[in-house]
Amino acid sequence: MTQGNDPVLRVRPPRSQPDLFTILGIVLSLSLVAGAIAMGNSNASFLDIPSILIVILGTITATSISYTGEEIRNVWGILASALARRVRKPSVMARQLMDIAALARKKGTLILSSLDGELRRDPLIHRAMQMVIDGYTGDDIDRVLGQEIDSLVERHRRSASILRRASEIAPAMGLIGTLVGLVQMLSSLDDPSSIGPAMALALLTTFYGAIMGMVILGPLAGKLERNSNDEAMIRVLIMNAAISIARQENPRRLEMIINSELPPDERIKYFD
Amino acid sequence: MTQGNDPVLRVRPPRSQPDLFTILGIVLSLSLVAGAIAMGNSNASFLDIPSILIVILGTITATSISYTGEEIRNVWGILASALARRVRKPSVMARQLMDIAALARKKGTLILSSLDGELRRDPLIHRAMQMVIDGYTGDDIDRVLGQEIDSLVERHRRSASILRRASEIAPAMGLIGTLVGLVQMLSSLDDPSSIGPAMALALLTTFYGAIMGMVILGPLAGKLERNSNDEAMIRVLIMNAAISIARQENPRRLEMIINSELPPDERIKYFD
Amino acid sequence: MTQGNDPVLRVRPPRSQPDLFTILGIVLSLSLVAGAIAMGNSNASFLDIPSILIVILGTITATSISYTGEEIRNVWGILASALARRVRKPSVMARQLMDIAALARKKGTLILSSLDGELRRDPLIHRAMQMVIDGYTGDDIDRVLGQEIDSLVERHRRSASILRRASEIAPAMGLIGTLVGLVQMLSSLDDPSSIGPAMALALLTTFYGAIMGMVILGPLAGKLERNSNDEAMIRVLIMNAAISIARQENPRRLEMIINSELPPDERIKYFD
Amino acid sequence: MTQGNDPVLRVRPPRSQPDLFTILGIVLSLSLVAGAIAMGNSNASFLDIPSILIVILGTITATSISYTGEEIRNVWGILASALARRVRKPSVMARQLMDIAALARKKGTLILSSLDGELRRDPLIHRAMQMVIDGYTGDDIDRVLGQEIDSLVERHRRSASILRRASEIAPAMGLIGTLVGLVQMLSSLDDPSSIGPAMALALLTTFYGAIMGMVILGPLAGKLERNSNDEAMIRVLIMNAAISIARQENPRRLEMIINSELPPDERIKYFD
Amino acid sequence: MTQGNDPVLRVRPPRSQPDLFTILGIVLSLSLVAGAIAMGNSNASFLDIPSILIVILGTITATSISYTGEEIRNVWGILASALARRVRKPSVMARQLMDIAALARKKGTLILSSLDGELRRDPLIHRAMQMVIDGYTGDDIDRVLGQEIDSLVERHRRSASILRRASEIAPAMGLIGTLVGLVQMLSSLDDPSSIGPAMALALLTTFYGAIMGMVILGPLAGKLERNSNDEAMIRVLIMNAAISIARQENPRRLEMIINSELPPDERIKYFD
Repeated sequence: MTQGNDPVLRVRPPRSQPDLFTILGIVLSLSLVAGAIAMGNSNASFLDIPSILIVILGTITATSISYTGEEIRNVWGILASALARRVRKPSVMARQLMDIAALARKKGTLILSSLDGELRRDPLIHRAMQMVIDGYTGDDIDRVLGQEIDSLVERHRRSASILRRASEIAPAMGLIGTLVGLVQMLSSLDDPSSIGPAMALALLTTFYGAIMGMVILGPLAGKLERNSNDEAMIRVLIMNAAISIARQENPRRLEMIINSELPPDERIKYFD
Repeated sequence: MTQGNDPVLRVRPPRSQPDLFTILGIVLSLSLVAGAIAMGNSNASFLDIPSILIVILGTITATSISYTGEEIRNVWGILASALARRVRKPSVMARQLMDIAALARKKGTLILSSLDGELRRDPLIHRAMQMVIDGYTGDDIDRVLGQEIDSLVERHRRSASILRRASEIAPAMGLIGTLVGLVQMLSSLDDPSSIGPAMALALLTTFYGAIMGMVILGPLAGKLERNSNDEAMIRVLIMNAAISIARQENPRRLEMIINSELPPDERIKYFD
Repeated sequence: MTQGNDPVLRVRPPRSQPDLFTILGIVLSLSLVAGAIAMGNSNASFLDIPSILIVILGTITATSISYTGEEIRNVWGILASALARRVRKPSVMARQLMDIAALARKKGTLILSSLDGELRRDPLIHRAMQMVIDGYTGDDIDRVLGQEIDSLVERHRRSASILRRASEIAPAMGLIGTLVGLVQMLSSLDDPSSIGPAMALALLTTFYGAIMGMVILGPLAGKLERNSNDEAMIRVLIMNAAISIARQENPRRLEMIINSELPPDERIKYFD
Repeated sequence: MTQGNDPVLRVRPPRSQPDLFTILGIVLSLSLVAGAIAMGNSNASFLDIPSILIVILGTITATSISYTGEEIRNVWGILASALARRVRKPSVMARQLMDIAALARKKGTLILSSLDGELRRDPLIHRAMQMVIDGYTGDDIDRVLGQEIDSLVERHRRSASILRRASEIAPAMGLIGTLVGLVQMLSSLDDPSSIGPAMALALLTTFYGAIMGMVILGPLAGKLERNSNDEAMIRVLIMNAAISIARQENPRRLEMIINSELPPDERIKYFD
Repeated sequence: MTQGNDPVLRVRPPRSQPDLFTILGIVLSLSLVAGAIAMGNSNASFLDIPSILIVILGTITATSISYTGEEIRNVWGILASALARRVRKPSVMARQLMDIAALARKKGTLILSSLDGELRRDPLIHRAMQMVIDGYTGDDIDRVLGQEIDSLVERHRRSASILRRASEIAPAMGLIGTLVGLVQMLSSLDDPSSIGPAMALALLTTFYGAIMGMVILGPLAGKLERNSNDEAMIRVLIMNAAISIARQENPRRLEMIINSELPPDERIKYFD
């Protein structure tokens, strides 16, 4: 029989949510550059398909040298995870974990088995609590989930490194394209009137390379590294809760540990 | 009954104090550049609103790609904390902590409860001593407050990284703006007399980008990293005091430990 | 007598497999540059044997300053290992190791001696299991194989550093070549019509240096660092299996540890 | 009664000694540049007060953004400690510490109190030995002096970082000054004969920035980092001696430990 | 009485051997540049004594700012150790150490005293074995020799840092020299025919700086860092052997540990 003042467990499933600021940031940055071009009152064309192709394709082919086919095919998934991510608010997660810990403290860890339906709504919580149910010790959970977090961070780091490397190669491809244009222009200086437009054309690849590398790929790589930190923090919270429950510690101690990992405005006050 | 030679506890609340040198540094640096322009005896205009907009807005939009809306909205708070900070002088803090430790040694740790009003004047001291009052062991305090310091440093690092990244993007946006101007100028070399002013205009975005990145954003990011070190040191002092009191160690030992963490001119001589 | 539901051990020997994306990446990148040159509709020659020689030979000679003859002679092996590598799929390896652990659990570790023929098909598995057969403890295996992995990663790092250094020297040689050309051109400005072609020629070494350093050598160095990570992960799996078998732990525990080191889509479900 | 073959303790006080090579290095580097200018047989003026002011003042103001008033005021002390330092020759220090350890071994650690006058001549030795006299254990000395060395290295690192940051800002200020000059020149190309001198003037700030950043501030920052290593090594020697004496270990063991931290040509042979 | 199948100890003294590839690398790189100049069919002079002096002397003086007189005087020794080094082949060293360990196992560690003549041929082996003879425990040997290796690596790192810093200053001095030339040229544009040669001359210092920094000093610094790794590996082998002998472990265990630190093609098979 459940008493009235029992915590009622509600696990909120993680929502996959597009990062508006990331998408907006790219759109607005490109619009700003387009606006700057439009305001120039010049008949200069900034659209040169071959230049765009050599920078974009060259960045892709030169980046793929450092990776395997599998990783390159996976790049869309990586880009997607930079634009949208599974959001778990730390304070909400902390409260859920406290609910679980309080329940386990009151009714024993066996109660967790009967909560399977609710726990299953967040796969990370489910996996950690399943280890508690299966009788793993706190040390085992520490080792296994800690190693998982390390592997996760390492995988995220490698994913971000693809974009990071591409962001370094894009300006290089732009420079190479400009060198090609310069050499061709310099080889035939017969018609002085063609020098200006030829140089303008040559500079376009540098322009595309700078935008691709510094406005799109570089910041997206930074976004991935940032998202990785967030997910690692959530997983550390869940791991610490599972360890604490497996060790049958007082939930007040867990609250203290969880709060020490949260930023001040996300800290919870579970017990009065 | 309190005896005459008892330490009288006075906790000095942290003062929020603007960093004059930081604000002066920005103002004077910009004035110097303005002075250099004025001394040029040239009718060249350095004020081109579109150029300023593309560099400032472009830096904001491209930086926001790597962050979430929450973090970008928080950027004013970050800038504020670079310009003004809560000052706690290390030697004053050390003396306060020694006062508390000496009192706790003499009257027992229970005396701390009755000092709540005074302790509450500095939230960091209050929080640490509350843990002692609640009966946490030295190891628990070490783990919880140590973890809090790690999280704090990590949060500060991430805040500084926003300004750091912006300081790298600003010159890039300046370069992109200059490339736009150069391509437009080179595409129409009909009127030789327009070449100079057009190039001057194109170079303005590089100029703005250099100032924003290297004179404002970069040094502010450095300031944040520096402030973080200061706060971490103060918190380590408080943590060590709380651990020492919880372990009921001799305050002379605490004085030695605190002094080993302070610069020579901040060290205290508490016992004669 | 082997029962029907016994795991039948099948060790899959590692396949040496060319990394198509790496080879394709280099070929396509160079083709793109060639295409950009061809599309230029210019009679400019991009083939200048002396320029190519000074960049390629100069990169080789200046890189070899930092290394010994042995290491330079070994560079072909290093390049080969960037283009083709021994592939061991983590999930297949994990399943094999679980088979071995399950067998050893059921029949005792002595059974491993009789499996020598099968184990020998993968030298890494064979070596680790031989240590179990020879009676080394889990701690000994941890120390010896762990040290081997450290040495391996360090050797890989040094191999990659040769290509990394060469990728930094190539643009420097290109710059030096261009400076030589510029100084020669500037010293004799008598014939204005020769200025353009002379500068074009001077820029060619910068062009070659950029391609060699940023499109070929740099990405290949990145590939080596990446391959090293892969091999280290496989070796950690094998080491953990050998330690677990030597300690006669429950294979379920090994499965958990192995899975914690694998990416989610490579994890195995060995026991139901 | 002191016997003839007793070690007679002579503590050599640290001498504050200017680093001639550092001062000479700056003077000769600037003289070389002046010589190069003089040999140019040109009537070009390299002395432009406004340019010098914008680079020097701009570097100071932009650097001070990242620091507090206290740190900026302390910068003369930092510069002084880069030009002159307290010299303690490692082998001499090692021999002194062995003398003290041998005396303490023979007569007991109480003898140290009576040597106070001699020990006081080097404040570092005095402080460490005072801890032994006060009865601190080896572990306490390890913790306190070890923490002091860490804090010292951290403080030195921060001092060096002021010069390091200034060395990065100086070329940036030079670039900004040159951009100002270029924009002004390009805005008024009416008089072709003024182009050359105007560009020469614009380049002067780049020239000053390069000299300030790369010839003066950068190397001085390197000097500070180097000095810090030296002082840390001396302090580690003293700490190890104090720990060894407090633990009443055989001085032969201390000699071995001290020698393992010294370069081969500074090692001592105290016992025959 | 020595039996026939006894290992006969032969310690091979380290040979000091010039690194031909390093010397050849410098000679060939400079020859390539000379060849490129000769092939230019230009009457341009690349030999300008003042330019060479300002780059070479300026690099020396600006580098010496960061170091003491002692370190600068020691730079010839550092350069010598980059061009020639004491070679100890790892597999030969491993075999010698196994011989010593096997002997010590069979006859007791006291036998080492009688082998003094042979051990003395390699000072590193002699020093480590002397510690075993003197009765130091494995832990003591670990601490002392481990600390020595750390100090050695640190000293090597500092030696390499002199060349590394010089390799960064050389291009900076080249740039400063070029700025001097440019400013002088731009100040007097009266005679157009002198512009080319004057710019050619100005570019020469950049050319010298690039060669000194990127072709000579940078790779030599890399060589020193590489040599340091080699010597540290040899010393770790000797340390591990001494620890193992002092602990009277089975030499088979030592063989396993030594092999785990060696690259596969240097591993030894001592016992059959």
